[in-house]
Amino acid sequence: MTDATTMLAPPPVDDEPAIAERIAKSVSCADGKVLGLDEFHRWFAACAERNYTAVERVPLDELTGWATHPVTGNIVHDSGKFFTVEGLDVRLPDAAVPSWTQPIINQPEIGILGILVKEFDGVLHCLMQAKVEPGNRNGVQLSPTVQATRSNYTRVHQGKPVPYLEYFRDRSDDRRVVADVRQSEQGSWFHHKRNRNMIIEVSSEVEVLDGFCWLSLGQVHALLHEEDVVNMDARTVLSCLPFAGAPDSSRMRDLLAWITEARTRNDVYADRIPLNEVTGWQRDGTSIRHESGKFFNVIGVDVRAGGREVRRWCQPMIEPIGIGVVGMLVKRIDGVLHCLMHARVEPGYVDVVELAPTVQCTPENYTVLPAAAHPPFLGEILGAGPARIKYDNLLSEEGGRFHHALNRYVAVETGIDVPPEQFQEYRWVSLPQLTDLLRHSHYVNIQARSIVACLHSLQGTANR
Amino acid sequence: MTDATTMLAPPPVDDEPAIAERIAKSVSCADGKVLGLDEFHRWFAACAERNYTAVERVPLDELTGWATHPVTGNIVHDSGKFFTVEGLDVRLPDAAVPSWTQPIINQPEIGILGILVKEFDGVLHCLMQAKVEPGNRNGVQLSPTVQATRSNYTRVHQGKPVPYLEYFRDRSDDRRVVADVRQSEQGSWFHHKRNRNMIIEVSSEVEVLDGFCWLSLGQVHALLHEEDVVNMDARTVLSCLPFAGAPDSSRMRDLLAWITEARTRNDVYADRIPLNEVTGWQRDGTSIRHESGKFFNVIGVDVRAGGREVRRWCQPMIEPIGIGVVGMLVKRIDGVLHCLMHARVEPGYVDVVELAPTVQCTPENYTVLPAAAHPPFLGEILGAGPARIKYDNLLSEEGGRFHHALNRYVAVETGIDVPPEQFQEYRWVSLPQLTDLLRHSHYVNIQARSIVACLHSLQGTANR
Repeated sequence: MTDATTMLAPPPVDDEPAIAERIAKSVSCADGKVLGLDEFHRWFAACAERNYTAVERVPLDELTGWATHPVTGNIVHDSGKFFTVEGLDVRLPDAAVPSWTQPIINQPEIGILGILVKEFDGVLHCLMQAKVEPGNRNGVQLSPTVQATRSNYTRVHQGKPVPYLEYFRDRSDDRRVVADVRQSEQGSWFHHKRNRNMIIEVSSEVEVLDGFCWLSLGQVHALLHEEDVVNMDARTVLSCLPFAGAPDSSRMRDLLAWITEARTRNDVYADRIPLNEVTGWQRDGTSIRHESGKFFNVIGVDVRAGGREVRRWCQPMIEPIGIGVVGMLVKRIDGVLHCLMHARVEPGYVDVVELAPTVQCTPENYTVLPAAAHPPFLGEILGAGPARIKYDNLLSEEGGRFHHALNRYVAVETGIDVPPEQFQEYRWVSLPQLTDLLRHSHYVNIQARSIVACLHSLQGTANR
Repeated sequence: MTDATTMLAPPPVDDEPAIAERIAKSVSCADGKVLGLDEFHRWFAACAERNYTAVERVPLDELTGWATHPVTGNIVHDSGKFFTVEGLDVRLPDAAVPSWTQPIINQPEIGILGILVKEFDGVLHCLMQAKVEPGNRNGVQLSPTVQATRSNYTRVHQGKPVPYLEYFRDRSDDRRVVADVRQSEQGSWFHHKRNRNMIIEVSSEVEVLDGFCWLSLGQVHALLHEEDVVNMDARTVLSCLPFAGAPDSSRMRDLLAWITEARTRNDVYADRIPLNEVTGWQRDGTSIRHESGKFFNVIGVDVRAGGREVRRWCQPMIEPIGIGVVGMLVKRIDGVLHCLMHARVEPGYVDVVELAPTVQCTPENYTVLPAAAHPPFLGEILGAGPARIKYDNLLSEEGGRFHHALNRYVAVETGIDVPPEQFQEYRWVSLPQLTDLLRHSHYVNIQARSIVACLHSLQGTANR
């Protein structure tokens, strides 16, 4: 037998710090090398004028191209593709609300959310898109280069090809992967939904099509501070950037053990059921509503989208009731920004628990829920004065499935103590630890990814 | 707004290298500080004499405590706990065998596989157990400190308490987590089965009960070279040790992107169905067999286990047909040992694909499968001469569910080239990369974890 010890020599030099440095350089490039922010705003306003959607509510029973299955009551597209609205039977034996049923979107296809990046004058820029979605209250939002379901890019709806898709589907010598990880989406509204979050760097020339522009990370970060400009898909992809700061690996081990413990402690049974077996929800031909009037409605819309190509389609959408609060308590520990993460169960998650922001709720829903279900720390967040508020903005969830789904995203610096024995579902997690977790699926939920992207944006705004 | 840049200072000093060094020290401690290997063998033989199982085959329909559900045909324990034998309907649209149905074990409970470690004379030792399982062909095998389903430790079967369980369930100042991660088990026989793999270090005194002993990692590694001594549960826990060698992070990023790609490329639909809707399998009152006579049987056993406490119970088991081959091609790249991993789909996995050894098959099954389903590289492994064979041993799978499930585990050094364009499902992955992946669930399958544990054992045998 040969000397096996020599088989375990250290690996060669790593180029990861180089990427992290280049990301930091782009973050600190406040006004870009291609298009200044003033110019961007004129361009964006012009895009908004050229691209519009007219969204009209129509009864669920009258959605062209969609049908209600005669046996299950599920709402299904005639092609069998896109997504279906089904029922979910949820049991959480140890929770304050131990069981319920609800409508849920089942979209098994894994789509691509991709941002193409390229250096200009030695600074990385992102190819961003001014994209209109039917659920956006303001029409156009800043979106990733590519935002496509598999039905989109295999062209089930016979539309034009998805621009720039080839950069994310085909490998070539002029491209390198900066990030490529499937991440979950809203576990209260989707069953096992995942999208592939990709960042691809290209070194060769790229043609800039109408509706696209190159922005530095510093510029995108500035736009994250404007109301409802950067869409959810862009935010989740941005959160997956390999920012600097390797986490302490023994603390990482303790964090992973805490997640394992939370996933073992919580029993979740979430079974898909026919939509017509859902109880507590009222369905007429027009919509599906919870009998309390809270949570969300399932509605139908007829969409006319204009721009270079006029398209018209109908689809069901989820319309949340009320504006949500996504609140993160933050604190410096040994100089490093930490977030108070919540190991949160949502019925649509693939793996029981994901790390959520400290608070993620729609306050008015709690009027119909038991007191034990009320979120801790909500008062600490809503009661914070301006000096403690590090970030505060209204942002939308995905406009392709959700109708006017608005959340107030807020980060509040706190001095409170969170004793682990009292709050076993909560834990201080550093930004570098979150960056490390975000290399993998199923750890950090979509709302947390949004606010993490916003927290990274604070780096460029130190002097504001 | 305060200066957010200072929030991102580097974290404090890491103690991870210290743990890796202490593991290496224990690996190089060939004969332990507590019990020499000769003494161990005498002790182990004495345990085997005191602890026995008498396993008698009984018809499935006559299993005391189990019943066949009148509607579904599922085989269910009277308590509703432990596990059930159900059916699975599998569709893999792009695979050589695109669809089939099969019996499968559904065991949603997450059990604990835990090894307690403690320093003696400055060297870490593992508290190992001589444990008998009904499916073991040789009675007693070397097992983790704790090996318990939740039904075990919540005492559904009214047995005695599980010894040492408190070290894995309760935190205290004299204990620290070395590893704690849920890992999958056989995805061809289990639906979404996961166990919690835990390694806990204790600093206080520990009473050594009958049937337990302290061994250094060097000793456990030596025993991994003896035929069928170290059981599957011990091997999977050992594979999760945080061995030395941080992987290159840009290569890690490429590896994760390749896994994302494999998980996106493969569509897997695996739906639980009633056992009596499974086709191609013959069920009489005695057993369930595939009509080809291949793959596996579901059988019933009546077990009498003796030792300090005599217990008797009946249960269904899976009895594989034939001896499997678990083969890993290995190669040094830049001096580091790499394994040729296979991104393998198994229907019972939670997340589509896990990394499997180069070859994992029962050769005789392929007489009834299409040629395209035959495993590549099997010839390279079975045809290797002794100089290229780095590890070669017969080891068992879990004796609690599987009856005489034997695999030949073999690692072969190779010089062959594996062009990625020709073998997109295969990739060279270094041992440090596998160690890094093993901090997380759903990446490295049970067979690969076994052989990874064996490859680590080569470190201590350099001079053999």
